[in-house]
Amino acid sequence: MKWRYATKRMNGQKVPAEKLENILEAIQLAPSSIGLQPYSIIVVEDPEVRAKIAPAIYNQPQITEGSHVLVFAAWKEYSTENVEKYLNHIASLRGIPVESLEGMRNMITGSISGKSPEQLLNWNMRQAYIALGFGLVAAAQEQIDATPMEGFDPDALDAALGLSEKGLHSTVILTLGYRDAEKDYLNGAAKVRRDKEELFIRL
Amino acid sequence: MKWRYATKRMNGQKVPAEKLENILEAIQLAPSSIGLQPYSIIVVEDPEVRAKIAPAIYNQPQITEGSHVLVFAAWKEYSTENVEKYLNHIASLRGIPVESLEGMRNMITGSISGKSPEQLLNWNMRQAYIALGFGLVAAAQEQIDATPMEGFDPDALDAALGLSEKGLHSTVILTLGYRDAEKDYLNGAAKVRRDKEELFIRL
Repeated sequence: MKWRYATKRMNGQKVPAEKLENILEAIQLAPSSIGLQPYSIIVVEDPEVRAKIAPAIYNQPQITEGSHVLVFAAWKEYSTENVEKYLNHIASLRGIPVESLEGMRNMITGSISGKSPEQLLNWNMRQAYIALGFGLVAAAQEQIDATPMEGFDPDALDAALGLSEKGLHSTVILTLGYRDAEKDYLNGAAKVRRDKEELFIRL
Repeated sequence: MKWRYATKRMNGQKVPAEKLENILEAIQLAPSSIGLQPYSIIVVEDPEVRAKIAPAIYNQPQITEGSHVLVFAAWKEYSTENVEKYLNHIASLRGIPVESLEGMRNMITGSISGKSPEQLLNWNMRQAYIALGFGLVAAAQEQIDATPMEGFDPDALDAALGLSEKGLHSTVILTLGYRDAEKDYLNGAAKVRRDKEELFIRL
């Protein structure tokens, strides 16, 4: 965790497939509220697609110098189809009848119906940030550099990737690659974190 | 990551101090937008305080059966004092004059001034979820059970912990402890996650 930092310049080297899959698996295993995982992750490796989305990300160099750009995109809404698919998935994996999940269906419906579309989107975006956290830790453990990025135009990025039609909204980016130690002014800079005494209130 | 699950019942056993500190250190090291870490984490061990906050968390058993309850509380606003403290911290740790961080000060001011109070709070809450993700992974690595919890009344919890006066708003909870394998119906249940083919869109 101390090795990693928000890499500003990368050297173009490819992340090996096995390491990428380990990072994606950690993201897949991240928990979420009610377990719905209300997001998709667009994994962009194709240099042409990366060039196409770069302007929406203000042409930050990592997009083209990195190896893979992961766009975490939250669900804009909960469809009945998504909820039913989830309940069927639980029933099938746990070998129980889907009818036994009626209580869970009511809980999900209750959680959703009390929220405005904006509250639902914010809720989903927060869940995506747990997955982002899992991806960041996994990347560091694989010794892959990773840059979490919020500096982009979400609507432009949605348009470039066709996300709106899929019911998705781009939320946060994680770029994977290898640091360019010479060009990156942040490489080797002291890590700045609030002191434990200040960050934690112990009762 | 496959070992962990959202533990519903715990057995009252204490988490050793060293393991707790390792988990808190991972949370401390979590990155955040612009590096501001716009949250505090209330670490509640005292049984009396846990009993006091339990009703605001709908008396879920983990609060009293667990060892420590971590309440992630986002900043409700950005004070000039917080921003100046952060800039001075960077300057001091990196041995540079604070005047050289003028560009960063402008970036922070720009990021903040364009957002409504509600947007700022949502932004801060998302950052807290990255730290939650780091805490979840660290707990699993320490073989400590951990339950992320959103099922609570934030205003009631703020009141019970006096958070509003501190400019904080309770966002999400992470309870640490040890599973009660016999009482917990989720212990040993198959983990349900969306398939990689569905969760990831590869381009």
